[in-house]
Amino acid sequence: MSKRTVLNLKELKFHLTPDQVVTDSDLLTLYGQDWLKQWNGKAGAVVFPKSTEDVVHIVNWAKSHKISLIPSGGRTGLSGGATALKGELVVSFDKMNHLSDFNPVEQTVLVEPGVVTQTLQEFALERDCFFPVSFAAEGSSQIGGNIATNAGGVHVIRYGTMRQSVLGLEVVTGEGKVLNLGRGLIKNATGYNLMNLFIGSEGTLGFITKALIKLLSPPPKDPLVFLFSVENKSHIPKLYQHFKTQIAPMAFEMFTDKALNHVMESSDAVFPLENRSPFYILMEIEESDKEKAFDLFEKALNDNLLQDGTLSQNQTQARELWKFRENITESLSEHQPYKNDICVRTSVMVEFLDEVEECLKKQYPEFEVIWFGHIGDGNLHINILKPKNLEKDSFLKQCEKASAILFSLVKKYQGTISAEHGIGLLKKPYLNYTRSEEEIELMKKIKRVFDPDGILNPGKIFDL
Amino acid sequence: MSKRTVLNLKELKFHLTPDQVVTDSDLLTLYGQDWLKQWNGKAGAVVFPKSTEDVVHIVNWAKSHKISLIPSGGRTGLSGGATALKGELVVSFDKMNHLSDFNPVEQTVLVEPGVVTQTLQEFALERDCFFPVSFAAEGSSQIGGNIATNAGGVHVIRYGTMRQSVLGLEVVTGEGKVLNLGRGLIKNATGYNLMNLFIGSEGTLGFITKALIKLLSPPPKDPLVFLFSVENKSHIPKLYQHFKTQIAPMAFEMFTDKALNHVMESSDAVFPLENRSPFYILMEIEESDKEKAFDLFEKALNDNLLQDGTLSQNQTQARELWKFRENITESLSEHQPYKNDICVRTSVMVEFLDEVEECLKKQYPEFEVIWFGHIGDGNLHINILKPKNLEKDSFLKQCEKASAILFSLVKKYQGTISAEHGIGLLKKPYLNYTRSEEEIELMKKIKRVFDPDGILNPGKIFDL
Repeated sequence: MSKRTVLNLKELKFHLTPDQVVTDSDLLTLYGQDWLKQWNGKAGAVVFPKSTEDVVHIVNWAKSHKISLIPSGGRTGLSGGATALKGELVVSFDKMNHLSDFNPVEQTVLVEPGVVTQTLQEFALERDCFFPVSFAAEGSSQIGGNIATNAGGVHVIRYGTMRQSVLGLEVVTGEGKVLNLGRGLIKNATGYNLMNLFIGSEGTLGFITKALIKLLSPPPKDPLVFLFSVENKSHIPKLYQHFKTQIAPMAFEMFTDKALNHVMESSDAVFPLENRSPFYILMEIEESDKEKAFDLFEKALNDNLLQDGTLSQNQTQARELWKFRENITESLSEHQPYKNDICVRTSVMVEFLDEVEECLKKQYPEFEVIWFGHIGDGNLHINILKPKNLEKDSFLKQCEKASAILFSLVKKYQGTISAEHGIGLLKKPYLNYTRSEEEIELMKKIKRVFDPDGILNPGKIFDL
Repeated sequence: MSKRTVLNLKELKFHLTPDQVVTDSDLLTLYGQDWLKQWNGKAGAVVFPKSTEDVVHIVNWAKSHKISLIPSGGRTGLSGGATALKGELVVSFDKMNHLSDFNPVEQTVLVEPGVVTQTLQEFALERDCFFPVSFAAEGSSQIGGNIATNAGGVHVIRYGTMRQSVLGLEVVTGEGKVLNLGRGLIKNATGYNLMNLFIGSEGTLGFITKALIKLLSPPPKDPLVFLFSVENKSHIPKLYQHFKTQIAPMAFEMFTDKALNHVMESSDAVFPLENRSPFYILMEIEESDKEKAFDLFEKALNDNLLQDGTLSQNQTQARELWKFRENITESLSEHQPYKNDICVRTSVMVEFLDEVEECLKKQYPEFEVIWFGHIGDGNLHINILKPKNLEKDSFLKQCEKASAILFSLVKKYQGTISAEHGIGLLKKPYLNYTRSEEEIELMKKIKRVFDPDGILNPGKIFDL
């Protein structure tokens, strides 16, 4: 940060308590980066608002001094969306983490952006409700970040993404205006829906200071888990259709045998199916759907849509089965994988996968590519493992080229280059693989409407 | 329309077939108005595009000649949103009414904007799916209009509004650009969600030329209908909570005894409950929830939350019970009611209703006020009946004053002045009772982003 900014920091401190403005070097590094750690981010300073008024004050101060602000949640992002590469002022919502106003009639709760996802899940369960958004980083990701990236996870096919859980948002725009959007109204036909514009905008239009979250009830009781083996890739969408049209699975996850290999190598788990197969499906269902699901399973087995399967007999077994899917990411970490998180429509997924595999095999025969994902919503996680003998930089460069190939195919199949991680910095060069030039132009104009001085998370998603 | 416009019409006709541009006086009147018929609208001409290309052509032509365009669907609107009061060119989507690309894996269908709601419902049922948006005007309302106003109806508490059924939109902006938004992707974290901005924008940002609609399955089998009588208004939200936390009702509708009086007078139906009561609840549930619902009903009866009730024993009875709620609007029509369609959060509804009733009784003791609505989502329809001895104009003027009182209370309770009918022309003066001045200012700026020449449905929602 320039000297002038340091001077201005004093002015900022004047309106806040000493613990709210931090410049310790360790913390500047911590708050300058996200989980990806691809860039050497470092904040110029970190400020911790405790209220909406604090956020308004910070934004107004930043606006008058043309200071860039980076919003910061749990920093579990994987696209550089919350990184500070130019010594910007990081606005951390760690101290805005209250839950209040639980409404038992409407089953809503008002949360501040710094509330950790898991805290909200537990809060809901204590009130005989549940919060359905669930994913690997839920122990540290924050609700504000979840909303800013429209987080998804494993239960999207049944309960939707974060967007479907938000009934209201209080935001502070780049002009320091407080908007109170949505306000818990299920129906409201009074002009443009600004609330949905903020969901997924990665902190570039405004900072979320409160969210009214819809909880669901009753919590699913003792969900059951099926694990199927599938020989033929083209059967996967058929299987999904087969189950989905009769019951409502809560999760429908796919992983490959290659992915399973890594999980098996890194644990002493016993795989419950007799024979291995190229693909596996993990399906979570409600207890009440058990009989119907079992009939459908038998029919699929007879029709040769799947080869084998097992059903959890208790919650311990259900958790054990989930681990084969959940432990993939961790089991790959030693290979420093290059991750991509794309989405195509379920019905074209097989064709898309075939073409991607053929392309990558031809161009990068030495790369091991691991697929897994949320088949039910078309979201695939692609991990390219770093060969041991390849330097990290050289590997990253080759992966970026591989990404361009992958993204061209995503474009061809009208998919998206980011299903749930966001664009941030990582995918900025590829935004036009998913969004048209007209759309990008319109997005830039909308950015200017809400943040005319360009102080909110500048350089993320696109450059102005 | 000015002479110059007439000249330009020839130029427009040059690119279209003769049946696509109409200037018959009867049709100009028909297409200049909506169901409300509060204004003497008359189109300058009506144009019937048959394709997206036609719409682009019309918009570009209008843009270069500064002609205002009014989008027109089933014209079942009740807020003047699709009226032509200044001889504008009406763009009717009657000839863009194809359904295509049914996708059995994803259960989606591509519809043109002129598809009638009921046609889509039937299309879905023929494919073992269902389309959940259902309301009185479904026999003539069109999907384009449903999206443009984010239509709701009776099943919102279970399946959401139109917004939740849209997975993709093709729109033509005021600059004649074609945007292909959403594209069926359930997850897509690549910048701002423009699709949701168009849903509910009443044709002021762009014209919808295609929509990818999500269908659901399996269709609910033989839904059951409960009819309860409730003595105490304050028990209504409690009843909703009581049932909602254990089962998932498909509809939870309320009407007053006054409303029932009108239905009974205008039909020979036999009311199935022994005693009359000030309030009634109609609850629709799935067959699979029958036992649970019955237990909950008995518990509510014991706790004195409701006084009496009946459960349909077959589909004929279910339909008969629905009629007590569905026939209210028709039974009131001879009284030329002044309608309002507001929404408050369910948990403050009773308090709100008490205050509104007290106010109206004091100010307009001669008015009969009929309430009914979708309690589950807080959406109340308020009908003020015209006293026989009062002239229509004088009645309307008094109602407008009554609306101002009502809307002040809506504002006080942070509700909305329009739950599902939209702002159009009718509620334009009251927009700031629900949206803040900052929001209205931002909406105007967004309008200019998508429609810089202000040719798309100008003067609706707000004036620029």
